[in-house]
Amino acid sequence: MDTARLRGVLPPIPTPFGPGGDVDLHALRSNIRRWMQSGLSGIVVLGSNGEAPLLDDQEAARLTATAREAVPPDRLLIAGTGRESTRATIAASRQAATDGADAVLVRTPAFFKSQMTPQALIAHYAAVADASPVPVLLYNFAAVTGVNLLPATVATLAEHPNIAGVKESGVDVSQVADYVALSRRDFAVFCGAAPVFHPALCVGAAGGILAVASVVPDACVRLVEQVEAGRHDEARRLQARLTPLARLVTTVYGVAGLKIALDQVGCYGGPPRAPLGAAPGEAAAAIRQALAELQEVPVG
Amino acid sequence: MDTARLRGVLPPIPTPFGPGGDVDLHALRSNIRRWMQSGLSGIVVLGSNGEAPLLDDQEAARLTATAREAVPPDRLLIAGTGRESTRATIAASRQAATDGADAVLVRTPAFFKSQMTPQALIAHYAAVADASPVPVLLYNFAAVTGVNLLPATVATLAEHPNIAGVKESGVDVSQVADYVALSRRDFAVFCGAAPVFHPALCVGAAGGILAVASVVPDACVRLVEQVEAGRHDEARRLQARLTPLARLVTTVYGVAGLKIALDQVGCYGGPPRAPLGAAPGEAAAAIRQALAELQEVPVG
Amino acid sequence: MDTARLRGVLPPIPTPFGPGGDVDLHALRSNIRRWMQSGLSGIVVLGSNGEAPLLDDQEAARLTATAREAVPPDRLLIAGTGRESTRATIAASRQAATDGADAVLVRTPAFFKSQMTPQALIAHYAAVADASPVPVLLYNFAAVTGVNLLPATVATLAEHPNIAGVKESGVDVSQVADYVALSRRDFAVFCGAAPVFHPALCVGAAGGILAVASVVPDACVRLVEQVEAGRHDEARRLQARLTPLARLVTTVYGVAGLKIALDQVGCYGGPPRAPLGAAPGEAAAAIRQALAELQEVPVG
Amino acid sequence: MDTARLRGVLPPIPTPFGPGGDVDLHALRSNIRRWMQSGLSGIVVLGSNGEAPLLDDQEAARLTATAREAVPPDRLLIAGTGRESTRATIAASRQAATDGADAVLVRTPAFFKSQMTPQALIAHYAAVADASPVPVLLYNFAAVTGVNLLPATVATLAEHPNIAGVKESGVDVSQVADYVALSRRDFAVFCGAAPVFHPALCVGAAGGILAVASVVPDACVRLVEQVEAGRHDEARRLQARLTPLARLVTTVYGVAGLKIALDQVGCYGGPPRAPLGAAPGEAAAAIRQALAELQEVPVG
Repeated sequence: MDTARLRGVLPPIPTPFGPGGDVDLHALRSNIRRWMQSGLSGIVVLGSNGEAPLLDDQEAARLTATAREAVPPDRLLIAGTGRESTRATIAASRQAATDGADAVLVRTPAFFKSQMTPQALIAHYAAVADASPVPVLLYNFAAVTGVNLLPATVATLAEHPNIAGVKESGVDVSQVADYVALSRRDFAVFCGAAPVFHPALCVGAAGGILAVASVVPDACVRLVEQVEAGRHDEARRLQARLTPLARLVTTVYGVAGLKIALDQVGCYGGPPRAPLGAAPGEAAAAIRQALAELQEVPVG
Repeated sequence: MDTARLRGVLPPIPTPFGPGGDVDLHALRSNIRRWMQSGLSGIVVLGSNGEAPLLDDQEAARLTATAREAVPPDRLLIAGTGRESTRATIAASRQAATDGADAVLVRTPAFFKSQMTPQALIAHYAAVADASPVPVLLYNFAAVTGVNLLPATVATLAEHPNIAGVKESGVDVSQVADYVALSRRDFAVFCGAAPVFHPALCVGAAGGILAVASVVPDACVRLVEQVEAGRHDEARRLQARLTPLARLVTTVYGVAGLKIALDQVGCYGGPPRAPLGAAPGEAAAAIRQALAELQEVPVG
Repeated sequence: MDTARLRGVLPPIPTPFGPGGDVDLHALRSNIRRWMQSGLSGIVVLGSNGEAPLLDDQEAARLTATAREAVPPDRLLIAGTGRESTRATIAASRQAATDGADAVLVRTPAFFKSQMTPQALIAHYAAVADASPVPVLLYNFAAVTGVNLLPATVATLAEHPNIAGVKESGVDVSQVADYVALSRRDFAVFCGAAPVFHPALCVGAAGGILAVASVVPDACVRLVEQVEAGRHDEARRLQARLTPLARLVTTVYGVAGLKIALDQVGCYGGPPRAPLGAAPGEAAAAIRQALAELQEVPVG
Repeated sequence: MDTARLRGVLPPIPTPFGPGGDVDLHALRSNIRRWMQSGLSGIVVLGSNGEAPLLDDQEAARLTATAREAVPPDRLLIAGTGRESTRATIAASRQAATDGADAVLVRTPAFFKSQMTPQALIAHYAAVADASPVPVLLYNFAAVTGVNLLPATVATLAEHPNIAGVKESGVDVSQVADYVALSRRDFAVFCGAAPVFHPALCVGAAGGILAVASVVPDACVRLVEQVEAGRHDEARRLQARLTPLARLVTTVYGVAGLKIALDQVGCYGGPPRAPLGAAPGEAAAAIRQALAELQEVPVG
């Protein structure tokens, strides 16, 4: 893969479950078909919003392979393959490459958080990158994992020829800026927190991997275009309308909220998998209103 | 299983790995044989200290089955079976029962922490307890998971006929006291934080599931006896000598430290599995000194 | 002062404000008269529950002097004198001694929390203890201040001849145990968190400085007697009834809740000072019920 | 004051102490004279970096009055007047206005953090703004205070005719963006965290109140000019060189570090006041290097 393609907007797509609770590959294909009509650079499967920790390895493999059929070669298919052990992460990364992923997104191990020193993280990611047939993207999500990839750690890992970028899901934009400043020029820093998408782009992010982009892909793509054109007032206004919806489908209602939003824009959302439960009763109306305020015809 | 047996001290044993990185079942048997010479009530396999998140399901099954052969029927074998999804937790619990576990220890799901409401946790644990052939112990470890089982949630779950107790790994002894006060009389509350073992017993804990108990089982058992006999001054002094060692093999050096301590007392410790790395160079001396200060002939 | 008197139960009393918002010294005397009819070892003025950060220096001096008139010489009067600067803390401690305080309670400086290293804290407390005419008690309240007095720091400071003890307001009972274990024999460790009063006494606390003791002093004193007599089952039951009330008047409703409780037991509570506001409407009924469940005739 | 002047860069200046530990008003005048040769919009006295919590009221008054003599009328003099009680904050704000402050900067009360509900904060700030003869700026510094001014709270307070803006010292740029988006058009949102100065300006901040601006005022002013001119690549590069120095004089070495930096650029820095201690030995060299890397002739 040409890592120069690591730019723009990619949604970490939710995994569709059918009424019986199994992965619904038909709905997956149908959703991807709609997303591919927008200006998205590709999609990410098996991220946090894909409920990856709730799937088993066979489900993950089938999902990646099916997605690859639906994502044309000129769009990116990135698969989340982070596991707690280095060996399982390597196995999952190899499988994802076999199933057609262009790159893998590897979140920090987190269970033994107090032991996840820079040294341990560097050894982990280097081993994964050595073994992975496709480029590796680091994935930092300290609010969930309790582990933070320091800029110096990212800078060290950016020297590895098979580590192509990082997704930062925090709202501290100075860390995004540090990742950009300290890493080699073509290292792709993705913003993973939609409420700071505009400022993250200002400080040099290559793009965004944003849950809300599965709901309103074109709005997210437009924000990139505005920043590239130096139209910051417009970007600021668009960001202000995007932020409330982005929060509803992430920090407020989580994956259940994201799936409600998908249902509202004509994609398949469906239920999350247990222990995730349905969103509270008021969620649908709140999401509908935020969507209306965004005044966006989101997909297709 | 007679849940009245849920008392006393059980170590959450480390998983021994051989030089090639695979589970060393021979070392496992040998370690258990030594532990069974002490006054331990049994052992816990596949807990946090067992590096359970770093094992795959087949390794877990073999480990439980092998442990059962080594743990006599009059001692408890408890297996950790918590997974992020409800369905995987149920599958693991069924497998553990098949493999001979007397009970299962189920940590809270944690990845989607902001969505782990009391309602979601109650639904998760009730589903697991409904399906598990053996009694379920709840497992609260908020410092690691970021999810806290509130006393009211535990009290509700204690009503389930197949939920027999809880392990609390925090140092807030008021939560241990609350679990005891709000739950039914024969609900077993285990202390999971050795530095508060003495006060936890004072407020009604049924026993302890303590990493340090795999190193110095008899010291831990003696502390229980002292409290039962009302000899609190002795208990206080023993606790003061136990605490430094307990911290070295948990919060300070983690599983790598625990394994060093096992090697020092004549059990098999060995290396942890990646991404866990070796403990820093000074760990062995610090642990040796804490052991010496405990003046304890730990096992056998 | 004979520091052997630093034992038993002392309430950190609320400061009574009259309708115009000024300190009501008449109500203060009347409240103290009632408290002195119980088995309390004395009182603490100008602690957190005394809204000390909301009073000016003149109000503080008048309050201490007035309290001294009402507290007989055989009971302790301790005054909170912690300020952010070392020089202001020294001045306040001298003034409190002049006004009749037997000892001063000095909370950790907190505003510049990242700079409050063990070295800085040791220098601060040593300077205060050097200058104070009366013994100094350290005061650790990490949940509020964000600064934690490590056991090793307390052990160092316990060597100072004019530092007589410490109040620990956290619920981590292992830290209480550490303070006891590491400090000289007659160093008085007070529990400042009522929900862990029983276990703190078990691990060697000399007593409690507890907000709820201003509401139900005799219940708190009885808990000490039960522990001293080795009647832990009774202590456990009393603790279980005390904890809900203790939380309502501290973590749940704060000083406003504490003052409502005082009004309900026949003391003067009154309003807190702004920016503290009135407790929410449901507070009074919740506190009344917790009081009833404690089945305690609290004062007089 | 014309609140349209609330723009650009202002340093929250350190308070100079002489060898005896008292405020050195001569050094204060001399420092201000140098700062006034740069493009700064004015200065802030008695902020966090001014060690305001370590000064008494008389020192504060003298310092403000002296600063006013040195700050010409066409530059802003803003004084920090936040206290824990509403009444003390009002008194300090009136005094500051008497002493010549153009506006007051009022940090959130923090000691009773669990009681600082939006309702309590709105009542506090409204009372202060009603009473203050000069405009009030809100001051949010959640990392230090543990209290966060939510965007909705700021939006409500922005309706008050005497509340002119807010300083946000956090690194979550989405909160800066929310403050801008939800508040009235001429409400001035200042960035208080230098590592996110560039992105904060991108999302609409009116300027910065930055400790590092007392060391390198012209670099900070230039960053504003670059953003206003749409030269984001240059701004990004300048930010990357500014961030390391900014961290050394705030989060890393605190006020002691800031004063070392002042000494290095030819201003008077001097020692901090106890309990703040000297910076560790390596601080001076680290700061010198960061200054050199910034390649900036900072003042005069």
